[in-house]
Amino acid sequence: MFVRPRLDINLNRILENYLSFSEARAFSSTIMAAVVKDNAYGLGDKEVAQTLFNKAGCRVFFVAHGFEGSRVREVAPTADIYVLQGPGKEDISCFAKDNLIPVIASPAQLDFWNQEKPNQQKPALQIETGLNRLGFRESEISTLSETEKNQFGMILSHLACADEPKHKLNQKQLDTFNRLRLSFPKAKLSLAASDGFLLGAPFQFDIVRLGAVLYGLNPVPNAVPKSKNVIRLTAPILQIADVAPGECVGYGAETIIQQKGKIAIVSIGYGDGIFRSFYPKGKVWFESNGQMFPAPMIGRVSMDNLICDVSQIPNDILNKNQFVTLINDSYTADDFGIDAGTIGYEVLSAIGHGIRFIRTYS
Amino acid sequence: MFVRPRLDINLNRILENYLSFSEARAFSSTIMAAVVKDNAYGLGDKEVAQTLFNKAGCRVFFVAHGFEGSRVREVAPTADIYVLQGPGKEDISCFAKDNLIPVIASPAQLDFWNQEKPNQQKPALQIETGLNRLGFRESEISTLSETEKNQFGMILSHLACADEPKHKLNQKQLDTFNRLRLSFPKAKLSLAASDGFLLGAPFQFDIVRLGAVLYGLNPVPNAVPKSKNVIRLTAPILQIADVAPGECVGYGAETIIQQKGKIAIVSIGYGDGIFRSFYPKGKVWFESNGQMFPAPMIGRVSMDNLICDVSQIPNDILNKNQFVTLINDSYTADDFGIDAGTIGYEVLSAIGHGIRFIRTYS
Repeated sequence: MFVRPRLDINLNRILENYLSFSEARAFSSTIMAAVVKDNAYGLGDKEVAQTLFNKAGCRVFFVAHGFEGSRVREVAPTADIYVLQGPGKEDISCFAKDNLIPVIASPAQLDFWNQEKPNQQKPALQIETGLNRLGFRESEISTLSETEKNQFGMILSHLACADEPKHKLNQKQLDTFNRLRLSFPKAKLSLAASDGFLLGAPFQFDIVRLGAVLYGLNPVPNAVPKSKNVIRLTAPILQIADVAPGECVGYGAETIIQQKGKIAIVSIGYGDGIFRSFYPKGKVWFESNGQMFPAPMIGRVSMDNLICDVSQIPNDILNKNQFVTLINDSYTADDFGIDAGTIGYEVLSAIGHGIRFIRTYS
Repeated sequence: MFVRPRLDINLNRILENYLSFSEARAFSSTIMAAVVKDNAYGLGDKEVAQTLFNKAGCRVFFVAHGFEGSRVREVAPTADIYVLQGPGKEDISCFAKDNLIPVIASPAQLDFWNQEKPNQQKPALQIETGLNRLGFRESEISTLSETEKNQFGMILSHLACADEPKHKLNQKQLDTFNRLRLSFPKAKLSLAASDGFLLGAPFQFDIVRLGAVLYGLNPVPNAVPKSKNVIRLTAPILQIADVAPGECVGYGAETIIQQKGKIAIVSIGYGDGIFRSFYPKGKVWFESNGQMFPAPMIGRVSMDNLICDVSQIPNDILNKNQFVTLINDSYTADDFGIDAGTIGYEVLSAIGHGIRFIRTYS
């Protein structure tokens, strides 16, 4: 009798993913950095950073916020830790204490950094090349003096459509990056995240920021190398019940039973990151001898439970399985995302925030 | 210069909501319990339970899992703490240590509880009356001996459509509950959560389980009493930029600018619980002298950022506001839910799981 959902996180797979993408780089001089922001997409920033620091020699990490950088510093004493959202008053002490490197996102942040100067690191500069998100615009770059330009140790930009290799904006952003970088001849260069890396050598430059592919996401389907799934999400069945025609299932009585069948009530819900939008297309899986049997969602997802139709699951399998599977190597966070109407990134992030899992690391 | 989003949680409002619903009950003998599962919908289980225990005399709490009950026990030493998902091997020690009361959800759980017997509490029994989720079915109740029936201190069920007061399933579930409860003449009775309470006296019985309305959600629009919003969610603007016709904004270059305008990049994203589905209908707000100015989303939500169109925001307001508002008394979690294609419950839960907020309690 179990009641809590489980999240098993495979750090060895994260290591494998890091290594297989490192091997695939066009130039051995390109540094492969690990993006561990938002608690490593929810999977454990310290666990992931420590694994990559100790076992893969990864010496460059990216986080979003200063306090996240301080967490990573605990396990990566000699790494370069970049803070993508830049410095702010809340976490400025982290930059001093843990020698973090800011990614300067706007002119106001540059002023703030130069005023505060909490450490001697050369900041990175984010430049805008077509995503229209954070970064110095061309007009803002042109107002920088030579001294100001030379203070940056890295120039960084981000692609809008790298998950669509044929999108014409990719080449356009690359051209813009190559033009704007000429203002910073001494700085290291970084344009690509996981999907940008897959666009090939011209996008890889000095530093690649690997995030999604470390965590088993494949933003570009069928790309090589392929990232391997790193999590196993399972949840206990609390009850199996017969249902008869005319009965309703779940909130809003949205599902009306058409024929005699069986349902299972599973102890996981949107309080654990299972989006309500997972209904109606989602399903959970019964595993038996390497085979997977789907049980479709039936009824809306509740905060603590979901209900699935197990009418088609063979009785012996139904009787022996105490757990159903929500994510594994065969049905990944990307697959889950498609069924929930979103992307694997958001699925991982939502599940990763769950506080009720029994979490294990292997 | 700020970079982290902020979540201000108003415990006094939660207290007010508890008290206003308590005053509205049909019988002064009805006990108003507080549902604080999943970290009190993400807002802080200990903070909420302590407030209601100390300031409102609340002595009955509901959580989903045993370990959650142990957290509540720390601040509510003499309360009855019910565990809705029932006992399981993972948290059974919590029941012994903290004298928690299980809600028995299935025959297998009853066997498990009677075997383990970690404390002398009389368990509650969940019975199924039409939601087709957890609980003993009528056929399962009929197999219980009189001794078994008498062991339960409370009989509990849950409504499927209480947020639709005119739904005919409400009366049907009430009738079923009233019929099945006759088997348990000595037990206390609980049928209603927040929305069930609003259905009136016949639904209120001995114990009402207030969850949603404590946290500012109004599952039944225009119902009385009305729950007051309890959170204020704001995020800093990192940058404001001009955009020109033909430029793209955000991932997938989905938004193409049609006319000259201005965008703001805000430091909050789906890593903080802002659903990707908040685009395209969502908006953020500029507050000035009690007025609210909307800035619609433009471009997909990223993990750490969102982008909004500020072309219509007066310049003086744009220049003086360092933060935008995502949720406040005028645009609540329920409103946010509508724009994101979901319900306020899921919005609160997702935001409540965020680990990057500067959190304050008042």
